[in-house]
Amino acid sequence: MGRTSDAKEKILTAAHSLIEQRGYTALGVAEICKAAGVPKGSFYYFFESKEALALAVIDQQWEIQRSDWTRVLRDNAEPLQRLRRLLEETEADLREGQQSCGTVSGCMFGNLTLELSNQTRPIRERLQEVFDAQLKMVDDVIAEARERGEVSVHDTREAARSIVAQLEGQVLFAKLYNNTRHLEALWENCQSLLSVSRTDTAPASS
Amino acid sequence: MGRTSDAKEKILTAAHSLIEQRGYTALGVAEICKAAGVPKGSFYYFFESKEALALAVIDQQWEIQRSDWTRVLRDNAEPLQRLRRLLEETEADLREGQQSCGTVSGCMFGNLTLELSNQTRPIRERLQEVFDAQLKMVDDVIAEARERGEVSVHDTREAARSIVAQLEGQVLFAKLYNNTRHLEALWENCQSLLSVSRTDTAPASS
Repeated sequence: MGRTSDAKEKILTAAHSLIEQRGYTALGVAEICKAAGVPKGSFYYFFESKEALALAVIDQQWEIQRSDWTRVLRDNAEPLQRLRRLLEETEADLREGQQSCGTVSGCMFGNLTLELSNQTRPIRERLQEVFDAQLKMVDDVIAEARERGEVSVHDTREAARSIVAQLEGQVLFAKLYNNTRHLEALWENCQSLLSVSRTDTAPASS
Repeated sequence: MGRTSDAKEKILTAAHSLIEQRGYTALGVAEICKAAGVPKGSFYYFFESKEALALAVIDQQWEIQRSDWTRVLRDNAEPLQRLRRLLEETEADLREGQQSCGTVSGCMFGNLTLELSNQTRPIRERLQEVFDAQLKMVDDVIAEARERGEVSVHDTREAARSIVAQLEGQVLFAKLYNNTRHLEALWENCQSLLSVSRTDTAPASS
């Protein structure tokens, strides 16, 4: 049992890393098993198909990221401070990833969306669930800030979508130019998109 | 000579359409030639490799798009009206594409960036050139608007990057949800990112 779980975990880890480096389409099951150091037969013991593996990789990645987003967005700080911290932590994570592997690999969900979402329905639906959940979490924080009179947007869901869209777009540029510097603009842009009164907002580190 | 050019054009058209539907990695030269209705031998007469073909597809697409952007962004209307028209035309193009083929295929440059930019250097560099040129065109219009006192941003280049990032992020969502409705937010978000005084701006259709 111990060894079995271990093999599944190894396949997931190898697939995650390979998808991050080269996308989904480029990969074959044989290559994933080789990278994971497990026999090809064990792949089909755990996963029905490469698509099933991709769904499992998305789920695992979202479980980790959702836990990070929950920690930051639902803590006791003021709502806009939480939003700021989310953007700053995202920037720090991407910078760290770049330092460890040499390139900005970007957002796995964004990458798979543009590579695959109009091709495979189960992956499209899973990615929609991930982004729906992200939008909901950001929406909740904006609604809180609006109740406190700190932002003046009519539609908090649309505002959340604009903030996550800005994040995905800037991460796209960070990947293209292999440069995380411009991610520093995220918080300022977020304030603009929310019509935040700038003087109201102390630095996140304070 | 007529037939030769025709075969090259057919390969480019087929490749463009296949890349739009399924990305670059999923395609093989044989499939492209089959879709183009040309013998495989003629492929290598025109293109050294699949990568060379992808570069030619990017160039051709950018030639068309640059001409559209130039028409809109360098005409005689007021600068912010031009920017608004660019966003509205982009939205209309995506909606039209969706109506004709059933799905939002998104932005080819964004798609290829997230699929490929950390894998092949020539494609990364070509896509950087495309986005550099887009940022420059938007930057020029923002600088004009700033000279007229219509926007209040410090760094017009950063503002241009934020606007194109917002566009790419919203197009990513349009592709994921196969829904162009939220692209309507682009102009409002653009105004927020540029700190435009809303009352200054008449509808683009006026």
